[in-house]
Amino acid sequence: MAAVADEDSLRRALAQKQSSIDVQGGAVRQLKSSGAAKLDIEAAVQALNALKLEKASIESQLQAALAGAAGGGSSSASRDAFRQAVVNTLERRLFYIPSFKIYRGVAGLYDYGPPGCSVKSNVLSFWRQHFVLEENMLEVDCPCVTPEVVLKASGHVEKFTDLMVKDEKTGTCYRADHLLKDFCKEKLEKDFSLSAEKATELKHILAVLDDLSAEQLGAKIKEYGITAPDTKNPLSDPYPFNLMFQTSIGPSGVSPGYMRPETAQGIFVNFRDLYYYNGNKLPFAAAQIGQAFRNEISPRQGLLRVREFTLAEIEHFVDPQDKSHPKFSDVAKLEFLMFPRDDQVSGQCAKKLQLGEAVSQGTVNNETLGYFIGRVYLFLTRLGIDKDRLRFRQHLANEMAHYAADCWDAEIESSYGWIECVGIADRSAYDLRAHSEKSSVALVAQEKFSEPREVEKLVITPMKKELGLAFKGNQKMVTEALEAMEEKVAMEMKADLESKGEVEFHVCTLGKNVTIKKNMVSISKEIKKEHQRVFTPSVIEPSFGIGRIIYCLYEHSFYTRPSKAGDEQLNVFSFPPLVAPIKCTVFPLVQNQKYEEVAKLISKSLTAAGISHKIDITGTSIGKRYARTDELGVPFAITVDSTSSVTVRERDSKDQVRVDVEKVGSVVREVTDGLSSWADVLKMYPLHSSETAEE
Amino acid sequence: MAAVADEDSLRRALAQKQSSIDVQGGAVRQLKSSGAAKLDIEAAVQALNALKLEKASIESQLQAALAGAAGGGSSSASRDAFRQAVVNTLERRLFYIPSFKIYRGVAGLYDYGPPGCSVKSNVLSFWRQHFVLEENMLEVDCPCVTPEVVLKASGHVEKFTDLMVKDEKTGTCYRADHLLKDFCKEKLEKDFSLSAEKATELKHILAVLDDLSAEQLGAKIKEYGITAPDTKNPLSDPYPFNLMFQTSIGPSGVSPGYMRPETAQGIFVNFRDLYYYNGNKLPFAAAQIGQAFRNEISPRQGLLRVREFTLAEIEHFVDPQDKSHPKFSDVAKLEFLMFPRDDQVSGQCAKKLQLGEAVSQGTVNNETLGYFIGRVYLFLTRLGIDKDRLRFRQHLANEMAHYAADCWDAEIESSYGWIECVGIADRSAYDLRAHSEKSSVALVAQEKFSEPREVEKLVITPMKKELGLAFKGNQKMVTEALEAMEEKVAMEMKADLESKGEVEFHVCTLGKNVTIKKNMVSISKEIKKEHQRVFTPSVIEPSFGIGRIIYCLYEHSFYTRPSKAGDEQLNVFSFPPLVAPIKCTVFPLVQNQKYEEVAKLISKSLTAAGISHKIDITGTSIGKRYARTDELGVPFAITVDSTSSVTVRERDSKDQVRVDVEKVGSVVREVTDGLSSWADVLKMYPLHSSETAEE
Repeated sequence: MAAVADEDSLRRALAQKQSSIDVQGGAVRQLKSSGAAKLDIEAAVQALNALKLEKASIESQLQAALAGAAGGGSSSASRDAFRQAVVNTLERRLFYIPSFKIYRGVAGLYDYGPPGCSVKSNVLSFWRQHFVLEENMLEVDCPCVTPEVVLKASGHVEKFTDLMVKDEKTGTCYRADHLLKDFCKEKLEKDFSLSAEKATELKHILAVLDDLSAEQLGAKIKEYGITAPDTKNPLSDPYPFNLMFQTSIGPSGVSPGYMRPETAQGIFVNFRDLYYYNGNKLPFAAAQIGQAFRNEISPRQGLLRVREFTLAEIEHFVDPQDKSHPKFSDVAKLEFLMFPRDDQVSGQCAKKLQLGEAVSQGTVNNETLGYFIGRVYLFLTRLGIDKDRLRFRQHLANEMAHYAADCWDAEIESSYGWIECVGIADRSAYDLRAHSEKSSVALVAQEKFSEPREVEKLVITPMKKELGLAFKGNQKMVTEALEAMEEKVAMEMKADLESKGEVEFHVCTLGKNVTIKKNMVSISKEIKKEHQRVFTPSVIEPSFGIGRIIYCLYEHSFYTRPSKAGDEQLNVFSFPPLVAPIKCTVFPLVQNQKYEEVAKLISKSLTAAGISHKIDITGTSIGKRYARTDELGVPFAITVDSTSSVTVRERDSKDQVRVDVEKVGSVVREVTDGLSSWADVLKMYPLHSSETAEE
Repeated sequence: MAAVADEDSLRRALAQKQSSIDVQGGAVRQLKSSGAAKLDIEAAVQALNALKLEKASIESQLQAALAGAAGGGSSSASRDAFRQAVVNTLERRLFYIPSFKIYRGVAGLYDYGPPGCSVKSNVLSFWRQHFVLEENMLEVDCPCVTPEVVLKASGHVEKFTDLMVKDEKTGTCYRADHLLKDFCKEKLEKDFSLSAEKATELKHILAVLDDLSAEQLGAKIKEYGITAPDTKNPLSDPYPFNLMFQTSIGPSGVSPGYMRPETAQGIFVNFRDLYYYNGNKLPFAAAQIGQAFRNEISPRQGLLRVREFTLAEIEHFVDPQDKSHPKFSDVAKLEFLMFPRDDQVSGQCAKKLQLGEAVSQGTVNNETLGYFIGRVYLFLTRLGIDKDRLRFRQHLANEMAHYAADCWDAEIESSYGWIECVGIADRSAYDLRAHSEKSSVALVAQEKFSEPREVEKLVITPMKKELGLAFKGNQKMVTEALEAMEEKVAMEMKADLESKGEVEFHVCTLGKNVTIKKNMVSISKEIKKEHQRVFTPSVIEPSFGIGRIIYCLYEHSFYTRPSKAGDEQLNVFSFPPLVAPIKCTVFPLVQNQKYEEVAKLISKSLTAAGISHKIDITGTSIGKRYARTDELGVPFAITVDSTSSVTVRERDSKDQVRVDVEKVGSVVREVTDGLSSWADVLKMYPLHSSETAEE
């Protein structure tokens, strides 16, 4: 299922190819206008044509994929039906609740109801255990309210935007790219009179949608006569809308603030203190779990695109000259689906790679990045994510920020397609540098040398007296310009001064050339001893969208099976015990005071052991009670059918064993804590056959 | 220490007394003006005078207390010095960090650094275990962003305000009551020329500060010529400032929203679903842990008054006719400091009461409220709060919302005085009713009767034909007015109609009287069978300020002791293992590869057991390493001084035992998980005397 090249990656490949064509086209034009050699121009044109051919091939693949989705509607329809079944069960059993439902809700805001809240809390506990505790990370907890200066430094005030259009009469807002996308898709799927040429054009737009500028989007919307979906009114030109929730800190109205769009900034601004806390040693990682906010223009995709969500982020700080990882060998043997940049561009599929090889062959930039990719794989699959519907996709060159060294997304396949759930990026020194500059506080690390090292250093010494005599009031600016010379410029000046005695020198701050004479400056290279190296660390950032992971987990865990009578389909969530919202239920087989007392005794021992459980003493049939708790994903059920021993049933196999009352608490505890498996339990306790019991 | 009647409670008593005097004064005036009997008037005047005498007595107590604080400055100074020592240690060891410090911070925003974050996570885990799991509560997790309609219903949009004044030239804002308070305190402490009369006046203002209206505050600020503290500019009149952070949901700008000021509303709006989830049964409790926000005008009191904080709230829904609690007997025998309303009003101190007696004597309104008071006491003391500096103070009548049945605050004594850390309120049906009305969704519960009950019911049947003939177009309004009659009015009409044949009847919606004749309406009482009772549940709400609890815990856990050489004072946090940010350290006694290997082996076994720990292989002296971790409150240190057995040291006693390398992981695990105590360990393992080891 995972090995199919899907629409999204074909679109990305197409966009990538188009941008290569643009670059190559520019090169051809430049060669022609500069009067380059005919041979060179021909070679460039040939390369351009080759690119165009490759593009055409990807386009036809995409066309086929789209036709498949549109024509063979059954697969898309069955995806929708599956999603509807999952979502209905989730809502009915209060895994989640549209927030403020009695007030007709707010788009993009959801509550976690009791079982959902429990799943979330289990996922976060395991995250803490798997990452923070296991790696000795420094966990911090910063506020959501953030002053503007921090988010100006990070670039969010300027760049965290989506393009929006407004219904010119009602003022209703839409995402410009969504409207254009809907238009193209609808045309392609429903307009059978569409010319082949027009279809190609629309497909091309879908492919490059993410790269269109406000002007290009606006022009297309005008050209196609797209109007507001609800009213058919004309639309405004697209303009950027900042996705941060804005507020004001304090009562004066002069301190703008935002609800943080990510938790990472709280870690970066604390780098200096955290580095000190870590004994001024690199590498180390800081981590944070917390709420983040994104004021979506018009949220779609239910639980996947929300306005408030929980992030869990790690910032691992390393020496840019040494990105090796001491524990890399622990994960190097792992094999899973990876989707490197080149395979995407050439229209191939994700394929199984061994992590160690991916790093040694340079597919993954460095060991530390690779280590986290491996740890994320283990984290997600232990939660219950299906390894065949999980892939690590490398960002294309045009997706990645200019400063990033490499970036991989853990994508999980759901009924919505492949969903980015974890981003693992090597962001180089960008964030620490940005905050250093804005705050004027040095966010750097030192490497103390065990013995001093000799380094050749450029030394420029302006002769103040001579410069003063020559330039008077301009002396300071000339001096500064001399001191600021780069090595190459300075060494050229030194040569010129020695050969000619004087040189013309451009002083930016004066806006003119001045004449520098030999006696005005001394330039030399000296050997100096250095005791340490000061540098800005690189940061490798695994960032987890907890809500998205949980939603995908719901889809991967959901299945139905017929009831015993065969008259209905029963829902089951096959959560591993680690994740299950309730670990165990306790049922007296029939209503009977003695059984109830035993049930309460067992319940007490489970509470003491910290095992979340539910006791159900209603007279409902045992089959119905099992079905109810299967739908909550409860892995084990203890049924009290005598006062000395009870049965324990496993959810998916429906197998039952018989265990003494005194032992059952610790048996369930061991198997839910992961100290033993159900297979171990089956070996140790007699199987209980209960044709009568179930359904 | 706890038994001293402090300033705050004396002020509250004074305010209470003044309001009684106001009421009684009003009663006297009314009696006089209505020409009541002389004897009645005299009795009322006598009561008034008695109140005035009591007030004078409280005033002199307050005066003494204030003089003590101002004159005997040493106690206040030593409190400040103690606080400074705690806060310095907390900041230096990164328990917390002023947020966005490199940008000079934002008042009222703090980060939890690594050990603080760990303490918080431990406190919240224990809260979940002690309340949610133990009581089978339904935990939910709702967004912080909240639409306006919800907070209009709850009253926050209208009433969640503080009074503010502005520097008329610079626009800087101040809390009006703070400026007046500072002025009065400063005068009382530093102006020795103050007349006795004036001093009394200022003390009275301090006592009633919380009850002053905007007009009264403004008048006093004018009268005393109070100006802006920083510039001495004139101040504006006081006006209310809403303390919620405001924002806008979505891009249109027409959906105002706020960052929630509490988590409770998310539970109330979900009542219907949660009640259903609980099988339509009462009582049940829902719980939520999450961030809440309060845009303070000018935050003071460091970590105690912040703009963003974590709340943990419980909403326990009960039948208002039955507030008994099945587990009350579990806590009835507990004895601790309680401070009932009457004792506060009469100027007494908090005293030890047995919880069972407090409930049975009616001091605490009901068993469920009492049960939670007991559970909160256990929660706080198990965390390490000193039981002698913890009291439960009942709200005075004028502190409590009009709808509340009873309310108690768990107050913890710190260097700032007695701090409200948990509020435990019986809020009756107020919140559910408010949301029912605003949303038009019934938030009610049903009690199904085991057999139908007979109830006498008023039946009003308007005769539409006769009413139509008589009132034509007005018939509908007359009919509705008749149907809406209350029982008393209806029975009077019935009697009048029977005796006189017709009556005058006022119809509000017509604005006039009409004549109702005997044949126009039938009024009777009938016996009806009812199968169920429908009612709005009462809610009992324990609400925990997690940050405040943690700060008080820091103060209660902090002490200093001399170093072995006696040349310096060493800081210790005596956290119980439950709370300690790191449970254990592992030190090789000296730098030595064999010891380091053993240390790493032990570290691995601790990680596997989920015990947070720190390994320190630096060559620092063992004494210094102990001192460093004592300051982080680490309860146990494992020192590797051989390859077969190691020592385990307990932080507060500094006792050490010798344990085999293979066993040490499980010994530490048992004692940090609370399965055994240090006393148990001392019994089982040989004491290790190490004159040489420490300091």
